[in-house]
Amino acid sequence: MFKVLDRASELERNGKTIFHLELGSPKNYPPGRIINKTIQSLLETKVGYTSPAGLPDLRQRIASYISNTYPFVTVKNVAISTANLLIFQLLDMLCDPGDRVALFLPAFPTYFAACNYTQMRIKSVVLDSNKGFILRKKDIDRAFESKPKLIFVNSANNPSGAVYDENVLEYLIDKAKRHRSWVISDETYASLAYKKEFFSMLNFSYERLAVISSFSKIYSVPGFRVGYAIAHESVIEKLSLSSSTLYSCLPIFTQEGLVQGVSIFDEFSDFMKKKYRITCRQCEQILKKAKRISFTVPDSAFYIFVNIGKLGLSDIQFSNRLLDTHGVAVTPGSSFGCPEYIRIAFCGDTKELKIGLNKLVYFVNNLT
Amino acid sequence: MFKVLDRASELERNGKTIFHLELGSPKNYPPGRIINKTIQSLLETKVGYTSPAGLPDLRQRIASYISNTYPFVTVKNVAISTANLLIFQLLDMLCDPGDRVALFLPAFPTYFAACNYTQMRIKSVVLDSNKGFILRKKDIDRAFESKPKLIFVNSANNPSGAVYDENVLEYLIDKAKRHRSWVISDETYASLAYKKEFFSMLNFSYERLAVISSFSKIYSVPGFRVGYAIAHESVIEKLSLSSSTLYSCLPIFTQEGLVQGVSIFDEFSDFMKKKYRITCRQCEQILKKAKRISFTVPDSAFYIFVNIGKLGLSDIQFSNRLLDTHGVAVTPGSSFGCPEYIRIAFCGDTKELKIGLNKLVYFVNNLT
Repeated sequence: MFKVLDRASELERNGKTIFHLELGSPKNYPPGRIINKTIQSLLETKVGYTSPAGLPDLRQRIASYISNTYPFVTVKNVAISTANLLIFQLLDMLCDPGDRVALFLPAFPTYFAACNYTQMRIKSVVLDSNKGFILRKKDIDRAFESKPKLIFVNSANNPSGAVYDENVLEYLIDKAKRHRSWVISDETYASLAYKKEFFSMLNFSYERLAVISSFSKIYSVPGFRVGYAIAHESVIEKLSLSSSTLYSCLPIFTQEGLVQGVSIFDEFSDFMKKKYRITCRQCEQILKKAKRISFTVPDSAFYIFVNIGKLGLSDIQFSNRLLDTHGVAVTPGSSFGCPEYIRIAFCGDTKELKIGLNKLVYFVNNLT
Repeated sequence: MFKVLDRASELERNGKTIFHLELGSPKNYPPGRIINKTIQSLLETKVGYTSPAGLPDLRQRIASYISNTYPFVTVKNVAISTANLLIFQLLDMLCDPGDRVALFLPAFPTYFAACNYTQMRIKSVVLDSNKGFILRKKDIDRAFESKPKLIFVNSANNPSGAVYDENVLEYLIDKAKRHRSWVISDETYASLAYKKEFFSMLNFSYERLAVISSFSKIYSVPGFRVGYAIAHESVIEKLSLSSSTLYSCLPIFTQEGLVQGVSIFDEFSDFMKKKYRITCRQCEQILKKAKRISFTVPDSAFYIFVNIGKLGLSDIQFSNRLLDTHGVAVTPGSSFGCPEYIRIAFCGDTKELKIGLNKLVYFVNNLT
C-alpha cells in the first residue's frame, strides 16, 4: 500500500502535481490542544523513556473513558502501542507459526502482511459485494470451518466502510468461544460511524478477545503512531513485555499530547462524523457520473471501495495509469484481497479531493 | 531493564525521592534546533505518514554525512527505524528460528530479548573483566566455534564502555567472511568515545554487515525513538518492507527535527564527549571511596559497570535494597548477562547523580 505513496511522492518531488486519494491519512486540522500539549512537552524536554505499556496517565485516561460504558475495564486492561504494530504483536504472541488465522475480504493489508511475517496460514472468506460487504452468519460459519486459532474482525471496516450487526457479532463470539479461538477486533474506525450505529465487541465478555484502536483517524494524527489495545490483564502484561523488547516505549510527548484528546473524544467524534458524512455525499455525487463502476456508500469513516471490474483493466493497471496520466493516486484493491476494486480515501484536502475525483471520472469515462 | 524504571517510577508517584542512575536516558538539553524544528513541523501539521524507509530528506542527510568518510554509502544503504527495533528486525530477517547467534558478555539486554523473541539459540562468550571487558581474538575464536549465523558486536560497548581495537575487529570480520556469518555492529555509542579512538566496522567491505546507530544518545533525545541502519541495498529494502508491515513509518516531525541534528553532528559530538569525560572523572572520584567494589573506567559514553561480587548480595538484592533504603535506582548486571555487577548511568542530572553515587557509596560501606 505504501508503494503507491512512495511512487506518488517521487513523482511529486519531480514536479508533478499529485492528487492524493490513496492513503487514510486525514488532512484535517488536529485538535489544537493535542498539538499544543505535544509542543509544551517538547519545550519541557520530555524526551526520555517512559513505560513500555504506555504513559501511565494516558493508560489511565483511556481506561476511565472506556469504563464509562464498560465498567470492567481498568488501567490493567489497557496497553499503548502503535495500532499497526499491535496487530503483529498480538498475532505473534497468541499464535504459533503454521496456525490458521481467519479473516474476511476485503481486509486491511496489515492483516495479510502480519500473518505472512509471522508465518500463519490465512483462511480468507470473501464477503458479498452485492450486500455492501456486510458480515453475515454464513460467512462466519465458513471462517470457522478452518478451526482458526485467531480471527480478525474489522467493523467499522477499512476499506468497505461497513458496520457489522450486533446479532452477527454475537454469533461470531459464540462460535469463537466454542472453538476457543482468539478474536482481534480492530475498532479503529468505530468513532467515525455516521450512517449506522456502531456496536463494539467490548460488549461481549470473552477473555480471548483483544480490541485495538488508534488515535490516528479520529484526531487526524496518523503520524503520531499511537494506538491502544483493550484486553485481559494477562494479554496486556505480555504486550507490555513485547513492546519493551521490540522498541522500549513510545515517545512521552506524543502520548502527553493525546491525553488532552481523550477528554474531547465524544464531541470531536460527533464533529468529525458530521464532516465525513457531508464529504461522503459530495464524493457520491461526483462518482455517480462515472460509467461502468459501482460502489456501496460507506456506513463509516472515509473510504469508498469502488468496483472497476467492468473496465477491462486490472486494479494495478488502473491505479498506475490514473497516476501517470492524471496524477491521481488511489490504492489498488488487491492490497485488500479484492483485485477488481480500487480504494478512494476522502479524508484529504477537500479541494484536492474534488479535482482528483473529477479527474478519475474523466479517466474512467474516456477509457476505450 | 525497564522493570527497574517502572518500580522506581511507582515509588516516585507515591512520594519517594528517587535518584535515577538506572537508564541511559540522557538528561542534557537536546540541541535547540532539533526541538525547534520538531515543533515547527508540528505547527505546520506534518502529522501524516511518510515512507517506511524513513523521511527521504533524513536518509539523504545521513548518507551524505557518512559518505564523507565512507564514500560507497548512498541513500540506498540507509534505513530509518527505531534502533532497538532494528535489532529485532534484522535478526528476524536474516536468521531462522533455531539459528545460532553469538554475542559477547556483558551485552545490551535487547540482544537477549530479541534472540528469545525470534527463537534463536544464543552462544555467549564472557569477556575478561580483568581486561576491562575488551574484545580479544581468543574471544572471537570461541564465538565462531559455534558457527553462528549472526554475531553481535557492540563497540563502544554498553554497559562496559569498552572500545574495541581495529586489528581485533578485522580479525572478527575475516572470521565472519569465512563462515558467511552476518554481523550486526551496534555503534550507538560510537560518537561518545572520549578515552580511546573509535573504529567503525564500516571500514570493512562486507555485504553481510549491518551497522546500526541512534540519535538518542548523542542528542539526548531517546524519547524520539529514531535510529538508523547502514547496510547493503538488499538488506535496506527488506528492512523497509519490514517497517512497512510492522508500524508503517515513524513520525515526520521527529525525523524533520533530526535532519537539523545531522549538520551539527561533529561539533555536538565533541561537546558531549568533553562533558561526559568530566562527569566520568567525577563519578570515579566518588566511587573510589566505596570498599570492596571495582570497576574499569569506560572509554566512551556514560555507563560504569561495577563489580559488586564481594559484597555478599546478588545484583538483584543489591539493586532492590539500594532502591528501597536510599532511593537510588541502578540496573542489575544480570540484565547484561553478568549477575555480579550493577550498571550505573551517569547521563542524568549531575546534582542528582552525585547525591545518588554518594548514597550508593554509603550503602556499600555500611553493608554488614
